[in-house]
Amino acid sequence: MIGLSSYVGVMESEINFAEEQQPLSPQANSWTNKQDQKPKVFGGFVLVHAGAGYHSESKAKEYKHVCKRACQRAVEQLKAGVLAVEAVAAALVELEDSPFTNAGMGSNLNLSGEIECDASIMDGKSLHYGAVGAISGIKNPVLVANRLLSEAQKGKLSAGRIPPCFLVGRGAHDWALSHGIPSWPSEKMATKFSLSAYRRNKRKMELAEKMEPGQTKRRRQSSENENGSGCLDTVGAVVVDLEGNVAAAVSSGGLAMKHSGRVGQAAHYGCGCWAENGCNLNTYSTAVSTSGCGEHLIRTMLARECSSAMQTEDAHRALLETMQNKFISSPFLASEDRVLGGVIVLRCCRCVETQPSQNIQGILVEFLWSHTTESMCVGYMSAQDSKARVSFQTHISRLPPGTVPGQSLAIEGGVCRLMSVAERSAETTIHASYCNPSLKPCF
Amino acid sequence: MIGLSSYVGVMESEINFAEEQQPLSPQANSWTNKQDQKPKVFGGFVLVHAGAGYHSESKAKEYKHVCKRACQRAVEQLKAGVLAVEAVAAALVELEDSPFTNAGMGSNLNLSGEIECDASIMDGKSLHYGAVGAISGIKNPVLVANRLLSEAQKGKLSAGRIPPCFLVGRGAHDWALSHGIPSWPSEKMATKFSLSAYRRNKRKMELAEKMEPGQTKRRRQSSENENGSGCLDTVGAVVVDLEGNVAAAVSSGGLAMKHSGRVGQAAHYGCGCWAENGCNLNTYSTAVSTSGCGEHLIRTMLARECSSAMQTEDAHRALLETMQNKFISSPFLASEDRVLGGVIVLRCCRCVETQPSQNIQGILVEFLWSHTTESMCVGYMSAQDSKARVSFQTHISRLPPGTVPGQSLAIEGGVCRLMSVAERSAETTIHASYCNPSLKPCF
Repeated sequence: MIGLSSYVGVMESEINFAEEQQPLSPQANSWTNKQDQKPKVFGGFVLVHAGAGYHSESKAKEYKHVCKRACQRAVEQLKAGVLAVEAVAAALVELEDSPFTNAGMGSNLNLSGEIECDASIMDGKSLHYGAVGAISGIKNPVLVANRLLSEAQKGKLSAGRIPPCFLVGRGAHDWALSHGIPSWPSEKMATKFSLSAYRRNKRKMELAEKMEPGQTKRRRQSSENENGSGCLDTVGAVVVDLEGNVAAAVSSGGLAMKHSGRVGQAAHYGCGCWAENGCNLNTYSTAVSTSGCGEHLIRTMLARECSSAMQTEDAHRALLETMQNKFISSPFLASEDRVLGGVIVLRCCRCVETQPSQNIQGILVEFLWSHTTESMCVGYMSAQDSKARVSFQTHISRLPPGTVPGQSLAIEGGVCRLMSVAERSAETTIHASYCNPSLKPCF
Repeated sequence: MIGLSSYVGVMESEINFAEEQQPLSPQANSWTNKQDQKPKVFGGFVLVHAGAGYHSESKAKEYKHVCKRACQRAVEQLKAGVLAVEAVAAALVELEDSPFTNAGMGSNLNLSGEIECDASIMDGKSLHYGAVGAISGIKNPVLVANRLLSEAQKGKLSAGRIPPCFLVGRGAHDWALSHGIPSWPSEKMATKFSLSAYRRNKRKMELAEKMEPGQTKRRRQSSENENGSGCLDTVGAVVVDLEGNVAAAVSSGGLAMKHSGRVGQAAHYGCGCWAENGCNLNTYSTAVSTSGCGEHLIRTMLARECSSAMQTEDAHRALLETMQNKFISSPFLASEDRVLGGVIVLRCCRCVETQPSQNIQGILVEFLWSHTTESMCVGYMSAQDSKARVSFQTHISRLPPGTVPGQSLAIEGGVCRLMSVAERSAETTIHASYCNPSLKPCF
């Protein structure tokens, strides 16, 4: 069994929730659909991550910046009236396009020096899902996954054939091209950083194999691995729109020096991401995206486990217990010395409050992240009027000094209330407020 | 919602449980480990399926024959002392080698006229899992999946790299070769039958596309699909050995005329197969293998759902409810007119009975199959002494006339008791008896 030395708590000092506590002006954003004279509400909330792994202080600014840009992209989409699934795809494109993340551009190279990416997306409204695995020569793998999802929603193909939800390798690449997604030169996917990391890893591997020629010896001695401190930064996002639809997505270049054809959790149903609208007033809508060591996240099916756990009352306790019992101490990973991963989780429900002057209908969004890796970079934002101050926050969560990655965890989060104020004029206003959530350590 | 016109019942007339009701001689098989003077018990039970789909009466004999041979292979292995996971792989090799099944030799051809196979295997003892997707040029994809599983059990690779559990496409093929699994000419995988089916399907597709040129029209009009009556015969097996370890495996050539690179449930963790030893005396060990439309089985994660359901008291009711609520009426498949699939399920627990002359320790095995497809071909067998009569049964289960595939289901099963009799001489005897299970319709 893995020894547990869990760290549990809310790092309040690192996230300045206080600056968000003032509700924005209810008059800030107003929009009326003149055509049908019904108020139309656009907006929502997005939480992104640039990976669970190790984020150096020297690059902290870049990681935070890409998270901010990804949030902005999603929010732009939400404000333009798209549903959560399109907004989450937009956030992922920005994360993939960053050369600092291990997804799309700048992905880890595999053993053969090639880039093969995994990505998946899930729409909580239709419960459809699309995924690609070990795909090369495509700039934004998430767009192929999203296109698979939307094509499947259209129904059967000619002669009654069932459309695919998961494509891999060359077939996935060709399908993308035949659906208008252009090819992208593989050499443009690699960066100076990813190429030098490949050369460094290759030397390290050759050295390790020279020093440990025996099969058994090699396997045993190498258990002190560099994956613990290596960058495992699969990226992902979760979104809720103002209709209450949730969506989740994930994208990854996979583990450095992986075997060609290896598919990680980012393409695996239930493991990389999960999104499920609540089916009635008594259930929460949930969205989850995972990051870390793909094999650990597959075998524990962590995205779906986290989603299921979110139906209990205390979201923080539920996530904490899931990360401890279904991940770090999972019987599925009993032989692993370090269980490396992270999740972002969002759950929401509708709430109605009646005030003398107006009926406030809103969505209460609880959002959390947790990781057993050294660090995890996250960002979140709510959809606001373009004139109003944009509410966002980026943050690198770190395990406290002295704790052991893979055996300890950090957990943090917040609460956001999205409100649509239906006034007599039938104008619709969106505003959001964050508050410091009552997240208490549970042991 | 899908209209339900469920068929529930035990087709006793088709399976002659009665002939198995006489327990075999307790003295039939005896084996003593002379080295440690402790009785060593070898044996077990295997349940296989040659697919949920449509099995013509004209080929019934061949389907039953391949099920029998697959059972024999697993039983040979069990009697030789291997664990459940190796026995289940042996059964799958036989099923893959048959030209009558849609797995390995004789697999469906894809849109490009190529064969790409999916397979996975799970060991309930170690909870390890191995899978290959869209692999070509390998005679027995399950052997690659099994090798991935066993390599992962050995621990980390050089320089601390985590071994893969899921490989696809060319990378999977190359990995197999580098691990001693030989390449196999693709042209030898196709059969006269699979080639003529491909030509027939291609003509049908071209005709459909000519007759329905409009995209929307094509999609709508084609909902009366040939998948309902087509052969979707993914194969699989579940095994329990006499130590009580369970294992499950599945292998498939995938849907006919699928897009190149499409991966179905057979390579998907939690969807194609599941095996989990009970973690204590209060939990059952369970093993599940699924067959049918991969996309439906992925999105409902049917293998794992069935396994989880098996922890309740009444196995038959649990499977019936799972097939109805988590498959036919699953919210994940709300837009599907026909939900096509089948499962074989095994659950077992240890039981101890004290008789005046001997202590009987045994394993009670409950086994079931259920399908929404027109038919499903199954076979089961228990490990016996080579001199004794081999206890086996093969059977093609069919939906009753008048019911609608994809909206109705059939469910059947049985109970087998594996006993090891520890006598004063410390010799060990294995025998098995089948009885008609108390499977009652629950509404």
